[in-house]
Order: sequence, then structure tokens, then C-alpha cells
Amino acid sequence: MKPELKIFKIGGGIIDHEPDLLEFLRLFSEISRPKILVHGGGKGASEMMSRLGIAPRMVSGRRITDAATLELVTMYYAGKTNKQIVAALQSYGVNALGVSGADGNVIRAVKRSVREVDYGFVGDLSEASVDGGLIHQFLTLGLTPVFCAITHDGQGQLLNTNADTIAASVAKSLSQQYSVALHFCFEKNGVLADFNDEQSVISKITPESYDELKARKIISDGMLPKLENAFEALHFGVKKVIVEHALHINGELKTTLCLT
Amino acid sequence: MKPELKIFKIGGGIIDHEPDLLEFLRLFSEISRPKILVHGGGKGASEMMSRLGIAPRMVSGRRITDAATLELVTMYYAGKTNKQIVAALQSYGVNALGVSGADGNVIRAVKRSVREVDYGFVGDLSEASVDGGLIHQFLTLGLTPVFCAITHDGQGQLLNTNADTIAASVAKSLSQQYSVALHFCFEKNGVLADFNDEQSVISKITPESYDELKARKIISDGMLPKLENAFEALHFGVKKVIVEHALHINGELKTTLCLT
Repeated sequence: MKPELKIFKIGGGIIDHEPDLLEFLRLFSEISRPKILVHGGGKGASEMMSRLGIAPRMVSGRRITDAATLELVTMYYAGKTNKQIVAALQSYGVNALGVSGADGNVIRAVKRSVREVDYGFVGDLSEASVDGGLIHQFLTLGLTPVFCAITHDGQGQLLNTNADTIAASVAKSLSQQYSVALHFCFEKNGVLADFNDEQSVISKITPESYDELKARKIISDGMLPKLENAFEALHFGVKKVIVEHALHINGELKTTLCLT
Repeated sequence: MKPELKIFKIGGGIIDHEPDLLEFLRLFSEISRPKILVHGGGKGASEMMSRLGIAPRMVSGRRITDAATLELVTMYYAGKTNKQIVAALQSYGVNALGVSGADGNVIRAVKRSVREVDYGFVGDLSEASVDGGLIHQFLTLGLTPVFCAITHDGQGQLLNTNADTIAASVAKSLSQQYSVALHFCFEKNGVLADFNDEQSVISKITPESYDELKARKIISDGMLPKLENAFEALHFGVKKVIVEHALHINGELKTTLCLT
């Protein structure tokens, strides 16, 4: 039987509020090893850009990662946020190792090709992007990898990559060796049947019920790419995907996604 | 016989000038493994602080690492500089792993105690600070660790630590397992007998000749702490210490420090 591995992804909503972030990290420290954390960005980088007078570049309502933005998010995500999380986890007894995709060449991305929009320094992942073997070695050493959402192309270029995608890709790459549970943690109790009712958590979603929920427009726009990512991960061997509140990862209320 | 290990330390003078940094990294990529790189800061963090309107705090002519400064240098050193170096090394075929002292708890420091001056969030190292065992594991995995000058106290606090001190402490911690050569690389050809003559490199310094050079005031102020660090490293089992130009690490001109 494969050993269990838990991968948690947290987003900006938790990171932006330090007491919440520390509470999540404390809860995360109580989860048994092996485990992995993937964190997104948060508003801090944007705030620092505006303090520096760097205007965000938007095209068709989408944010563009130009050179100045990439420099700033690399500093913020890989420097401030990642090291703050690693230091806090160490204080909770977790031997965390902060990594970008460039470190150990652990996630090699491809710069998104320019079609209608040039997204700039954004990295997309493929099946071969993640070095699951090296992550396994880190886990074997008793380390808990903490990924920020910065990758590289192997040619010296750092790239900004979606943290949900990183979490799903890391989960897929390790699912041959581990029985992987992928936890998407955010500021809701799970996938809600009624967006305004935190108690209306849909406890289980299968591909069939997902199609139905989509057709009935019960699942909101922001959740769709996360769930698409999640079902793809399941199709690639990830054991289960859980959508839950970052501050109740040990609680009962959650949405479990599975294939059947 | 112990395997050889080369540890290189580069400072701000090289980091501030990107073409020089890339040329150094290219030369470093040609050095045989196992190897380690330690990098200092550079002017970028100070420039960003002034752009953000954060005034440097000085007491008795010494810079104080207050909370705002610590946040900025963590972003800059552990984020921008470290990841830029790691990505460039990857492009040169070196499987670099960027780490702060918090990552893997690899360097645990103690916040400098307040005597006449409160230096703020500055971390000092002791004999037990560096986890040489984990660094050895990284080297065994074929990785090349790249240290920035940020450490932590194990209680969740990141700390700013002198990069020369980190290099010497890492060298000492690995000298039981490896025959360690510690290379301090900067913008001079070595320790110069005449500060204005790049050809006046003193090829070898022993503790005896060091005392004499100090007495004759041939060694300048800035070099003294570096050499004190170096001799301490030698006393703790580091095989040799070399002071050389960062762009001529494969050249003939250099100063070798040894105990006899």
C-alpha cells in the first residue's frame, strides 16, 4: 500500500491576514508527515508595487506579468511570504524547506506563448514539469517542502505560475509513489450550494454531479478553474481532493471530490 | 581521504553588476562538485528602501536592522537575489538549491544581545548553528546549496546575518566530512601589499605573517574581519582559505591563507 501524502494549498485570503496565516500554520503543523504546503500570493505584492509607483498592467481585464511585476512578485512570494511561512513552521516544529520551482530544478515551466494576449513572464506546466523524485527525497529527509508560486524555464528566466496549478501538478507527480490527498484551503467551508450560507457545504462532488452543478449554475465562476484542476488531478491518480476552510482543516465541514 | 568541497562567497560588489554576476556564475558552474555558494547583499535593497521612503537607521555609524529593514532585506536577498542566482545557475547546468537559514533549519542563529547598541534583527552564529548533516545530504543528492544571508532563531523570527560569517560557519561545520576550501571572492585579486596595485597580491598568509602585516598596517580595515573569520575557520579544521577576484576564480593570482 502506498504511504499517504497530504498536500495543502493556501491562497491570498489567508496570507493577507497574519493571525489567520499563523493559525493555519499551527493547524498544519499538527498534520502528520509527509506533507507539503503550496502558497499563493496575496495583496502584499500589489500594495508594494503601488508604493513603488509601478502600475499594474492589465490587458482585457487580465493582469500581465511584465519584468517589473515579475521582480516584485519574486521578491514578495519567494522572499517575504515564503520565508515568513518557513520560519513560522520551524517555530511550530515543522522542518520546512521553502522552494521556488528553480530550486533543485523542481518545477520547470514553459513561458506562456503569445496568442491574443501576451501575459508576459507567466509559466505554464506540463506533465514533465515537476521533479517528483527530488520532492520524494526531501520528504524522505523529514523535510516539509513549502512551494511559492514562482517557477523557471531552465534558461535562467523566472516565471510567475498559478499556485492552484502548482499544487495540482505536484500532487499528480507524486501520486505514483504516494496515496495523495490534495487540500485546497480558502475562506469558505467548502463548495457551497448557497454562496451566502456557510453551512450549505456540498460534501461530495463526482464528475457527474459536477456537470449537474455547473448546468444549474450552483458553482460560481471563481470555483470552476479550481475544480477543473482538481478533477484533472484525480484523473491523473491523485486519491482525493478536498476543498475546505483554511482555519478548519481538522473539522467536519468540507467538500470531497472523487471520481465515483 | 576526505572528499574535497569548495565553498565560494561573493559580495555586493559583484552582485550589483549583473554582467559580472553572470560571468562569476558561469565560472562557478565550471567548478567540479561538490560545491556551495554563499552570497551577500548589495546595494539593491538599500535602493529599494529609499524608493519606498524607508530611511536607513544608523547608530554610532552602524546600520540597524529594524523590522522594516529586515522585511526588505529578506525580500531582496532571499527572494530576488537568491532566486536570480539559482535560476542562472540552473541555466548553466548547476542544480542549485537556494536556502535561507530557516529552510530545513539549516542555520539557526541567536539574535544579537543588546549592549551599547541594539543592532535589531541581526543573528549571530555559534558552533552549533549550522546543520552540516543536512547540507551533506543536499550535496549527496547532487544539489549545490546557495545560501543567502538570512537566518532564523527557531522561534519564528528571521534574522540578518553577515555573509562572510555564514560562509565560514558552513565551512567549519562541513570540515569533519570534507576537505574544505573556502573562497572569499571580491573585486580585488587577493590581499594586496599595495592597495592601489592589483599585481601586489600576497600569495600566502600564515598567522605569523598576518600579525606582521597587521602591525605594519599593510592589511586595510575592511579586510581584517574577513581574515579573522578565515583564520578561525582554519583553526576549526577548514583546509584552506583563498581570497581572490570573483572574475578570476580559475586564475593564478590569489591569496592563500593557511596555518603553517
